[in-house]
Amino acid sequence: MRVSVIGGSDVDAETVGVARALGTRLGERGHTVVCGGLGGVMRGVCAGARDAGGHTVGILPGERVADANPFVETAVATGLGHARNALVVMNGDAVVAVAGSGGTLSEIGYAFVFDRPVAGLRTHTVEGVHACETPAEAVDYVERAVAERERRDA
Amino acid sequence: MRVSVIGGSDVDAETVGVARALGTRLGERGHTVVCGGLGGVMRGVCAGARDAGGHTVGILPGERVADANPFVETAVATGLGHARNALVVMNGDAVVAVAGSGGTLSEIGYAFVFDRPVAGLRTHTVEGVHACETPAEAVDYVERAVAERERRDA
Amino acid sequence: MRVSVIGGSDVDAETVGVARALGTRLGERGHTVVCGGLGGVMRGVCAGARDAGGHTVGILPGERVADANPFVETAVATGLGHARNALVVMNGDAVVAVAGSGGTLSEIGYAFVFDRPVAGLRTHTVEGVHACETPAEAVDYVERAVAERERRDA
Amino acid sequence: MRVSVIGGSDVDAETVGVARALGTRLGERGHTVVCGGLGGVMRGVCAGARDAGGHTVGILPGERVADANPFVETAVATGLGHARNALVVMNGDAVVAVAGSGGTLSEIGYAFVFDRPVAGLRTHTVEGVHACETPAEAVDYVERAVAERERRDA
Repeated sequence: MRVSVIGGSDVDAETVGVARALGTRLGERGHTVVCGGLGGVMRGVCAGARDAGGHTVGILPGERVADANPFVETAVATGLGHARNALVVMNGDAVVAVAGSGGTLSEIGYAFVFDRPVAGLRTHTVEGVHACETPAEAVDYVERAVAERERRDA
Repeated sequence: MRVSVIGGSDVDAETVGVARALGTRLGERGHTVVCGGLGGVMRGVCAGARDAGGHTVGILPGERVADANPFVETAVATGLGHARNALVVMNGDAVVAVAGSGGTLSEIGYAFVFDRPVAGLRTHTVEGVHACETPAEAVDYVERAVAERERRDA
Repeated sequence: MRVSVIGGSDVDAETVGVARALGTRLGERGHTVVCGGLGGVMRGVCAGARDAGGHTVGILPGERVADANPFVETAVATGLGHARNALVVMNGDAVVAVAGSGGTLSEIGYAFVFDRPVAGLRTHTVEGVHACETPAEAVDYVERAVAERERRDA
Repeated sequence: MRVSVIGGSDVDAETVGVARALGTRLGERGHTVVCGGLGGVMRGVCAGARDAGGHTVGILPGERVADANPFVETAVATGLGHARNALVVMNGDAVVAVAGSGGTLSEIGYAFVFDRPVAGLRTHTVEGVHACETPAEAVDYVERAVAERERRDA
C-alpha cells in the first residue's frame, strides 16, 4: 500500500533518524512512501525507503520538480503552496506523522477528512492519532488499521 | 480586519447559535467574516454578521457560486475540494474556530502555518488555540492578538 | 451578473485604457467584475468599474491579500500560482478577454470547460471567442449570450 | 525527460491510436509520460508507453487514485478538478497536444506560461504550437526544442 509520511522540514538529527528508520521499515514491508518531497522528515523517510528498495513519491509545494530531495523517485510539482498538504494525505492509504508543526497538524486534520488511519511518532497529541514508540510499531498499526477498514468496507 | 471563522457544517443547533452570536459580534466590531461558505457554523456566523450589517465572504469547495449559504455576500467558488481550507485561513487576519472535526483541525494547522492567532469555542484542544467561553471573549482575543502582531512587525 | 475579465499584467497604455472603458461599461450595466486582482488589464478594468460604482473581486495567485490592486473591493488570496486561473473563470457568468498571452489563453480554455461565453478585445484568435471592436460591443455580446443560455437551460 | 501529453478523454478510436503510437515512441526514446491519468488520449498514450517499457505518471482531477487508467504506473490524486491542468503541464519538460477541446486549450496556455515547447497532433491551431503530422515528428520536435532551451539557458 501507499503510506503518507508527514512531518517537518526543520527537525533535529534524531528525528531525521526516526524518519529514516520508518522509511526502511516501510520499504521492507513493500509499501510506497508518499511525502511532501522536501527536507527533514521527508528526506529522511525517502532515504530510508530507498535503502530498502522501496518506492518514493514526493508531492512538492513549488513549481519545480528539481526541488525534490534526491531520494524521491517520482516527484510531482504542484505550485499550490501549502494547499498541497491535502494532496500528500489524499495519496496515501494511511498516514504516519513524525514530529512537525502547523503543516503537519493540517495534514493530520486532512487524514481525518479523508478517513485515513494515523500513527504518530513524537508528534502532536491529538485524539485519533495512535501514538507509537517505534517505527516498527507505527507500520504495524497502519497495516492493521488499513486491513480492518478493508474488511469493514467489503 | 478580516476574521476567518472555521467550523463544521454538521453541528447541533446550540453550536449554530454560538456561531451566530460570534458573527453578530464580529459585525458590530466592524470586521469582515471569511468562511467556507456552506452550512452549520458557516451559515450561522454569516447570518449573525449580516444581522449586524457586517460583510461576509464565502470560499467554497465546489465549482458553483450558487452553493453558498444565503448570508454570504461575496461567494468565491474554487473547485478545489478540501484544499480550499488553506484559502479560508489565508484570507483572514485571525481565526476563530467553532466546534468542527477534521476539516477544522486542518484549518487550525494552517493558522499556525500562516501565523494567524486562533481563538477557540467548543473546539479541538490543541496547544496554540486560545480556548474561550464566549463569542465576545473570542473577538476580544483576536483583536488584541492582531494588534500585538502589528506592533511586533512594525 | 458577474463577468470575468482576463488579460495580461504587462500590456501597453492603450490596452489598459480599453480595459478601463470595459470596466466602466460593466459597472454602468450593474455587473460585478471578477479578475486576477493584479496590474495591467486587471487594474484597468477594476479602476473603470469603480468609476461607475461597480463591484470588483480579485482572485490573486499569491498568499497576500495586500497584493491586490487598489481598485479591488474584495480580494481573495489563493496561494495557488497559475492554477488560480481556473478560479477566475469559474467565478464569472461570462468572460471578456483583453489582450494577454499564455495565462489568458489558459483562461479562454477554462471558459470553454465551464461553458462560459467569451468576448474578445485585441486578444487571441481562437474559435469560440467572439471578437469585438469595442468594450460596449463586448458587454452587449456577453449579456445576450448569458440570457440565451439561461433560456436554453430553463 | 518528461513529456506532458495533453488531450481529450472523449475522442475517436483513430485519435486514441495516434496517442498510443505517440506513447510507444516516447517510451522507446526513454521519456516518461505525464498526463491527466484518465481515458481517451490519456489512456492511449499510457498504454503505448507501457508497450515500450516507458514510465507513466497520471495527475488526476479527483480524490481517488483508483480512478487512473490501468496503464498509469504512478497515479497522483489531486481533488483540484480542472485546476489540476496546471500541474499536468508543470510536470513535463515539454508538451505534446493530441486533439482535445477546452481543457487541452487551457493546458496549451499553461505551456506558454511555464515556457514549455508544444508539439501538436490534430489539435488546436494556435500560434506557438508546432503542428506535426506524425508522433515521431512530434517527439523529434520536443527533443530538439528542449535541447535548444538547455543550450540557451546554460
